[in-house]
Amino acid sequence: MANKARVNDLNGRGDMQKLFNQPADMVDEAIVGFVKCYHQYVAHTACPRTLKYKSAPISGKVGIVTGGGSGHDPAFMGYLGKNMLDAVAIGDIFTPPSEESFYHAFMEADAGKGVVCLFGNFYGDVVNARSAARRAKAQGVEVRLVIANDDVATDDPSTRRGSTGETLLWKIAGAAAALGYDLNQVESVTVQALSRMRSIGIGLASCIIPDVGRPNYLIERGTMEIGVGHHGQSSMDTCKLKTASETADIMIAEVLRDMPLEAGDQVMVILSGLGNTMLSELHILYSRVCDVLQKKNVDIYKALVGNYFTSLDMMGATLTIFHLNEELKRLLDHPGYAVSLTNYITP
Amino acid sequence: MANKARVNDLNGRGDMQKLFNQPADMVDEAIVGFVKCYHQYVAHTACPRTLKYKSAPISGKVGIVTGGGSGHDPAFMGYLGKNMLDAVAIGDIFTPPSEESFYHAFMEADAGKGVVCLFGNFYGDVVNARSAARRAKAQGVEVRLVIANDDVATDDPSTRRGSTGETLLWKIAGAAAALGYDLNQVESVTVQALSRMRSIGIGLASCIIPDVGRPNYLIERGTMEIGVGHHGQSSMDTCKLKTASETADIMIAEVLRDMPLEAGDQVMVILSGLGNTMLSELHILYSRVCDVLQKKNVDIYKALVGNYFTSLDMMGATLTIFHLNEELKRLLDHPGYAVSLTNYITP
Repeated sequence: MANKARVNDLNGRGDMQKLFNQPADMVDEAIVGFVKCYHQYVAHTACPRTLKYKSAPISGKVGIVTGGGSGHDPAFMGYLGKNMLDAVAIGDIFTPPSEESFYHAFMEADAGKGVVCLFGNFYGDVVNARSAARRAKAQGVEVRLVIANDDVATDDPSTRRGSTGETLLWKIAGAAAALGYDLNQVESVTVQALSRMRSIGIGLASCIIPDVGRPNYLIERGTMEIGVGHHGQSSMDTCKLKTASETADIMIAEVLRDMPLEAGDQVMVILSGLGNTMLSELHILYSRVCDVLQKKNVDIYKALVGNYFTSLDMMGATLTIFHLNEELKRLLDHPGYAVSLTNYITP
Repeated sequence: MANKARVNDLNGRGDMQKLFNQPADMVDEAIVGFVKCYHQYVAHTACPRTLKYKSAPISGKVGIVTGGGSGHDPAFMGYLGKNMLDAVAIGDIFTPPSEESFYHAFMEADAGKGVVCLFGNFYGDVVNARSAARRAKAQGVEVRLVIANDDVATDDPSTRRGSTGETLLWKIAGAAAALGYDLNQVESVTVQALSRMRSIGIGLASCIIPDVGRPNYLIERGTMEIGVGHHGQSSMDTCKLKTASETADIMIAEVLRDMPLEAGDQVMVILSGLGNTMLSELHILYSRVCDVLQKKNVDIYKALVGNYFTSLDMMGATLTIFHLNEELKRLLDHPGYAVSLTNYITP
């Protein structure tokens, strides 16, 4: 409420040139608009902050769930779909979903085979998901939590955040569940997948949090941040603004420092914009990523370049490299559909 | 070159916090990165500023082409694909493609049945496309030009610009060609389609043209522009910043003033961001568009909400309404694929 009062002092808008009615209503109104747009594929549930794939729960299949704060379009609700997410729990902007919202997601996704929830390593999210899992268990629904920590920006893996790699976990888990993997097997293959992916973010301009009305910090012009977080966190490493090629080199080096690759390895690459990044810029960056990996004889099996996991209107990008094996390739290639992951459909 | 000198004075970057190597190389490097990313679907040609769908020319089919300046990601090259565009001519940012580039696009798309080129009503584009069409004709290739003018921002239809509706023309033309329509028929059905669509743009913040390094004009904070153009042109109508619902109401009114709809009519809607617009904002806007059309008993047969035709990093959106009939619905529904138009694939 303190924030709200502050926004009102600024005529309800702060410094924001944005399309909304009231800042406090943005998340709920965006959910309603999203469902109106994709009503063939997604549906509301009894909880306004829980959405489900229209056909969920799907009989005979482990349920697949995620949850997280808003502000990461098209995550999370954009990944609901066939052989993808069955339900999502949605928080306020950069704020964990409530226990209630996670609980409803678990119950909506469960078809009697249990649920795997794959989400990012943020304190409040973990607390609320754990609590909701206990509540579901009391109702006879077993929920396994797989906590993504693919962001290499911090040195200690136990405190690492989830990043764009989460989208691949949902794809892997969705395919495994569709192929009849049981609860243990879905959990195990996604834990394995997680251990084979790393992400790094770079930021050139921060984002405006609508309920505050101003950027939470500023990236000085002529500088950039290496290891920037998905919640607009400042990173520990500010440097002079680099060229796209220098930036790609740094991103690849950060990932490979933590997960070395050898000649002959096959990978999937996601290069995601953080919101206010043009596709052209991502293609320029991708061109260099491609060249560097090719020079190391690392084969790019599949690539996604676009806005897959953003941070409001931040300017920057994340690079995710996913080291594949035969099982993971098979799961990636299994047909599936989500409104924001249509490039998985082979024409 | 004058612009380039100016950029160099600003250490090559001006005010830009953007990912590139040199501003002057952005377009060419983005094209190279795009082809690396989508090499299964698209290919270079003898002209570096002409790309083609990998399987083009397709025997027995009229060729479908567009062309335009860069800066409108994912237009134009993102719409190459199966039963979509066969070739595109690519200009510098907000600059017409060369005659050479159009000519190569026509020749690459032609399979002996002629070519229809559907592009926006901008002076230089029209001049260069006409000249290239004459050159192709001398080589025995007949090219018909369909000049899109769906933007209602100016009162005189003859001077109206092309806008996001162009993407639908490519879909309609691509489907018609795939279904065996001949050159006259493809031209005629797209001219008919064009007469049944209108677009309007609104801008909340202008874009930075990389070769200049600064916004070409400023939208004052707390204000917005109704009828803003896709080349960052200032509109004639600046007003106080409205709520999302008020904005949607204005956009619909502008479109319907020019193309009245009746109860029972069926439409397709595209709500496209202009670059730095969050999906959430578009969903909030769409929610109101949906309500207003529903209240008029106008049926939304299909909707696309996302970044389909942008203006660099401009903040704002365009609304396109396309009044359908049975033939146009059949063409919209005909299977097709382009890297940036995957939502046409029914799961």
